[in-house]
Amino acid sequence: MSDRVEALLAELTLREKVAQLAGLWVGAGDSGEDVAPYQHDMSSDPPVWDDVIKDGLGQLTRPFGTRPVEATAGARSLAAAQRQIMAANRFGIPAIAHDECLTGFAAYGATIYPTPLAWGATFDPSLVEEMAARIGADMRSVGTHLGLAPVLDVTRDYRWGRTEETIGEDPYLVGTIGTAYVRGLQHGGVHATLKHFAGYSASRAGRNLAPVSMGPQELADVILPPFEMAVIEGGARTVMNSYAEIDGVPVAADGELLTTLLRDQWGFDGTVVADYFAIAFLRTLHQVAGTDGEAAALAMKAGIDVELPTVNTYAEALIAEVEEGRLDISYVDRAVRRVLRQKDSLGLLDGWSPEPRGPIDLDSAGNRSIAARLAEESIVLVANDGVLPVAPGKKVALVGSRGMDPHAMLGCYTFPMHIGPRYPGTEDGVPILSLAEALVAQGIDLKTAEGCAVDEDSVDGFDEAITAATEADVVIVAVGDRAGLFGRGTSGEGCDVETLALPGRQAELVDAVLGTGTPAVLVLLSGRPYALGRFADRAAAIVQAFFPGQEGVPALARVLTGAVNPSGRLPVSLPRSEGAQPGTYLHQPLAGPSKVSSVDPTALFPFGHGTSYTTFEWSDAQADRSSMPTDGTVTVKVTVRNTGPRDGTEIVQLYLGDPVATVTRPVTRLIGYHRVDIPAGEARTVEFTAHADLTSFATRTGVRVVEPGAIELRLAPSSRDIHTTLPITLTGQVRAVDHTRTLRCSSRVVS
Amino acid sequence: MSDRVEALLAELTLREKVAQLAGLWVGAGDSGEDVAPYQHDMSSDPPVWDDVIKDGLGQLTRPFGTRPVEATAGARSLAAAQRQIMAANRFGIPAIAHDECLTGFAAYGATIYPTPLAWGATFDPSLVEEMAARIGADMRSVGTHLGLAPVLDVTRDYRWGRTEETIGEDPYLVGTIGTAYVRGLQHGGVHATLKHFAGYSASRAGRNLAPVSMGPQELADVILPPFEMAVIEGGARTVMNSYAEIDGVPVAADGELLTTLLRDQWGFDGTVVADYFAIAFLRTLHQVAGTDGEAAALAMKAGIDVELPTVNTYAEALIAEVEEGRLDISYVDRAVRRVLRQKDSLGLLDGWSPEPRGPIDLDSAGNRSIAARLAEESIVLVANDGVLPVAPGKKVALVGSRGMDPHAMLGCYTFPMHIGPRYPGTEDGVPILSLAEALVAQGIDLKTAEGCAVDEDSVDGFDEAITAATEADVVIVAVGDRAGLFGRGTSGEGCDVETLALPGRQAELVDAVLGTGTPAVLVLLSGRPYALGRFADRAAAIVQAFFPGQEGVPALARVLTGAVNPSGRLPVSLPRSEGAQPGTYLHQPLAGPSKVSSVDPTALFPFGHGTSYTTFEWSDAQADRSSMPTDGTVTVKVTVRNTGPRDGTEIVQLYLGDPVATVTRPVTRLIGYHRVDIPAGEARTVEFTAHADLTSFATRTGVRVVEPGAIELRLAPSSRDIHTTLPITLTGQVRAVDHTRTLRCSSRVVS
Repeated sequence: MSDRVEALLAELTLREKVAQLAGLWVGAGDSGEDVAPYQHDMSSDPPVWDDVIKDGLGQLTRPFGTRPVEATAGARSLAAAQRQIMAANRFGIPAIAHDECLTGFAAYGATIYPTPLAWGATFDPSLVEEMAARIGADMRSVGTHLGLAPVLDVTRDYRWGRTEETIGEDPYLVGTIGTAYVRGLQHGGVHATLKHFAGYSASRAGRNLAPVSMGPQELADVILPPFEMAVIEGGARTVMNSYAEIDGVPVAADGELLTTLLRDQWGFDGTVVADYFAIAFLRTLHQVAGTDGEAAALAMKAGIDVELPTVNTYAEALIAEVEEGRLDISYVDRAVRRVLRQKDSLGLLDGWSPEPRGPIDLDSAGNRSIAARLAEESIVLVANDGVLPVAPGKKVALVGSRGMDPHAMLGCYTFPMHIGPRYPGTEDGVPILSLAEALVAQGIDLKTAEGCAVDEDSVDGFDEAITAATEADVVIVAVGDRAGLFGRGTSGEGCDVETLALPGRQAELVDAVLGTGTPAVLVLLSGRPYALGRFADRAAAIVQAFFPGQEGVPALARVLTGAVNPSGRLPVSLPRSEGAQPGTYLHQPLAGPSKVSSVDPTALFPFGHGTSYTTFEWSDAQADRSSMPTDGTVTVKVTVRNTGPRDGTEIVQLYLGDPVATVTRPVTRLIGYHRVDIPAGEARTVEFTAHADLTSFATRTGVRVVEPGAIELRLAPSSRDIHTTLPITLTGQVRAVDHTRTLRCSSRVVS
Repeated sequence: MSDRVEALLAELTLREKVAQLAGLWVGAGDSGEDVAPYQHDMSSDPPVWDDVIKDGLGQLTRPFGTRPVEATAGARSLAAAQRQIMAANRFGIPAIAHDECLTGFAAYGATIYPTPLAWGATFDPSLVEEMAARIGADMRSVGTHLGLAPVLDVTRDYRWGRTEETIGEDPYLVGTIGTAYVRGLQHGGVHATLKHFAGYSASRAGRNLAPVSMGPQELADVILPPFEMAVIEGGARTVMNSYAEIDGVPVAADGELLTTLLRDQWGFDGTVVADYFAIAFLRTLHQVAGTDGEAAALAMKAGIDVELPTVNTYAEALIAEVEEGRLDISYVDRAVRRVLRQKDSLGLLDGWSPEPRGPIDLDSAGNRSIAARLAEESIVLVANDGVLPVAPGKKVALVGSRGMDPHAMLGCYTFPMHIGPRYPGTEDGVPILSLAEALVAQGIDLKTAEGCAVDEDSVDGFDEAITAATEADVVIVAVGDRAGLFGRGTSGEGCDVETLALPGRQAELVDAVLGTGTPAVLVLLSGRPYALGRFADRAAAIVQAFFPGQEGVPALARVLTGAVNPSGRLPVSLPRSEGAQPGTYLHQPLAGPSKVSSVDPTALFPFGHGTSYTTFEWSDAQADRSSMPTDGTVTVKVTVRNTGPRDGTEIVQLYLGDPVATVTRPVTRLIGYHRVDIPAGEARTVEFTAHADLTSFATRTGVRVVEPGAIELRLAPSSRDIHTTLPITLTGQVRAVDHTRTLRCSSRVVS
């Protein structure tokens, strides 16, 4: 393989090399619509197809992501484009076709799975892997090679609009779920892209692309671990840079991250692609380059191999840098080598795969079944005084726009919300219902009243909502977000917020409904956690769903009516109040409540929390030892009995406390978890085997170490409700931990 | 001097050495009151006077700061205590007596000057220096040697309760004003203490003591410069550590800051004192030490010489560390040497100064005059449609609790707000009035109505306020903060907030008053900027005052009635909305408004903004060159003409823009300013001479460099309203800048 790539590389001209390093976004521009901000901020005119492909082409950008195209027809168009590309260049090399797949293949008619934040809520990497394998297979079936997922950013500020795209606020959860996604997608035949490497989620005040104030330790301990796991365990083939600038250094120009850490330390040998327009942003937004050529050279030296979405600086500007001696050709060769290797591994050096035969179904029954299971597992029953499940025969009112709108289940990177407006699936017989319709379909005696829209400034519907609530036995208030892009929604890319108040007049609507005295079920359909402190004491139940996807409506209805016993757990905390961001459960002691601040940031409901329609009793927690060397292993187990009336699922969580360390440590952090189904009346014993590496942390110099001394292993159903604390003493010397193995805790059900 | 210290050091036993390294807080504990949080969190019992002083004593903590004691009596008590200390130790060494002096000597009966944020608003270092010299002389007159000021923290998040204690959000302003304070105080005979070194103001979400997420470049560019200037230019003799932990490392245990940077690079040779309880906090709060001994050793190795406020870990715990071989005696000797040198320089190795003779007046007419001038200069006329000054004969309503309460003028570290409850000065004939009383005294036809308290949840007074407003020609709404400590106020140490909404129901009160249609003057008396976006379009005028001190009431009245032409400028921006923190004017391009975020953080009124009762016309801006080498100097000047009807004062501001640099740079930052009085009809030409060093910034490796390339020098009356941009090209090589000179721009009136 390598010889073949080297031989090819030796024959390519500079122009042919550079042609392999850029994408081409055919979809954008020709209709004139502004599908991405700053899209037209480039120095050069929009590229012309024939001009671009004459020396070859690195990537084709989003052939399926820009317009509603039926899958089989789209596959044929893509194949035709590839034939032109192959014919245009001397070596017959096709392009890598990439598309988005954040919540499934973001193409018309493809299954829309739950958002990543919902995957986090499932604590179920296996099911996520199954989903991703289906996404990969579907994408490959139409000729796509590369998927721009998963997002491995760890949530740091809930105000960020892209919170819905993250898997949650804990690096271990993000890493394990995200790595499962990578495995699945690549098993399905499509290369995964880890994004956004790194630091994007910690932007100032949660504003998209705002600078990141962060030092090397926090970066190493919180932000990097999911990427490390997905590279080393998951074998991810592509990494996308983060738009972020961290402490003044844009990641797109940061060789320490993109090369020294990623490749030299972690051993990554795939390609690094630019987030859309990120190289140009070095000139236009970060202002660390004066020309496109400088921007291109900075990015290339740092380690960005491919410019996306479309040819811009990795074109004439880059060629001039090389020809005029400002950039050594070895950098270009390095990037081209990686691209050719990737194409080789995808079979693209052997020409184009055959035309698709017969109809392609991107929304198979198998897909839908997985989407439904994920949706069910992702819904979190946060609180319940017994009002749920809704008892048969009750008169139910449904209030709030999120109950009337099937789009309430969809995140921002889904085809309908991203491109829209047509809802896929509606024409092939699959009913896409609103929650109201789904409840009626399940035989609920329902009255509905919207009350108010998500973010309009009108309370005209309040009276009707109050009346409906007053006349009902139970009222369900469904509020939250409408996903969108760049200000067209209340959650999603570019839809950042100033505080965690429910958007629009929805908080007042909830207040009004609670004021009726009718037992109220607060249902949140949102892309971020919102402040619930003012409602919590008065609501009879709280259900949190994070855009559960196209199968989310029936899933939510089944949870509310009791057909499904909820098993989701919070992948982000639910805050008490609207301000006081940033902050998540993962914090040092002084970031918690203290005697020296009048602001108590304690969450209303903590990370990992969730309840169900049955009850669990934990017992017999124990460790197989009370001390171990700093390179040792400890096994802990706990027995969980389902003491309630029906089958249920518990998420057994293992947290670490480190009472004294040489740098400040989080009060508690997740180092393991296991999702276990337990039939009514039965018990399961879950065992975790934790290597001392799991206690490691980055020191000031960036070295990760295991320190001797006391630690605490905490078995818990949430980050706050610790069931048992097992003290362990680490003995021996401080030990540096390398990056050849990742920090995973193994777990299993032993009886 | 040095020989004497060395000789003494050689004779001291370990116990005698350690005794020189701690303070003793006699005032605390014996009345049982909890004057500081965590005060009783120490391992050992409260110290007993005789036991402590038998081997000597490093410092006496706040002899004047704990109870209302008349100055002369207090001075005698202090002298008596010193005699006991001298008698108890073999070498007759007295203690250094320290007290707080944030807004003046924080002692009963001493002049209360405006808060530091108000000093910032004056842009008048000379007057601040004059004030500080008076504070120093007053403190020295009662036997105090060391003052715990100035605060050089640069505001980063307005939610932080200690924002009122900072000089503002720009490091150049903080550095120049703070250095003037240091010079003044030390000229008065009292050693200044720079605090809090460093990073305290950037705590997460503005919560006091919460961890700081920050990298080395931001620290070097934003947080450290004021300290560097105050050390190198100001010759400060004492530095206090910050409570902060920065990226996991508590400053109290950080030798890179406290020793490598402060001493090795900057050449500081005074003492480093612990912020109160900070060494114990290494064990109890940061959890980087398991025992008091570990905490003591960590702090001492890092470079904390003296433990304050009272003996705790620098006692038996520290002695055991040395005796048991875990801490080399050389660390102790290093600290003792510094303490003895400081005592020597204060004359304390020659015994105690004589008893105070005759009555001591800490609130002289001279003091009051300076306090009044500072107050007048600090008040910012933010907006004015002509309603101000209040025309004679107008019927005026004054609404809002801040108009009725003389304490509305006082910050949290003043004696009455800190210790209270008595208001100093009321018994010696100085009338302390509320704003209402002061306006009446100036002959205003006034009706008053409180409306609501600062932070109580009642709107019972709204009707009365609305009536008063409706019946008046002009209504003044005075709202803002009540300063306090640890949750007992709405601004001040420990009084952090979640959002920038006006406390309590005050925003609703302002809305109600604005709703009357009577021309309304919004007067803010606050310790932080509050969100004014919802009021700005409807208020006829906005006046911002930052706790202007005991002379603040008449000063404010004189501004409102026109006896004084306002000249203050905003040392912090006034935000539009309540959320979206942190963020200040000093930010990179991507921290501003962008196409990729729905949140626009643009301030309502920018840093440096302020208007007056006259008008200024700027002209003839020019530079003496268009290019200079990277070690060169440029001179720029601008002519400002007072084109209005009365004498006035302009603050001519010089900002720097750096369009392209190797790391991301602020959109604009202050590098010079000059306060200039201009009689009506006259003009003044102000000249700035800027060395290229002023364009320097920290690179990733921490080295400060001047880069060649284009820069912009902007002459402006505020950070946003640029009058003239002068493009300058820096030529030559990248040049590293050392720390032997600080980054000051010289300025003068040339004609």
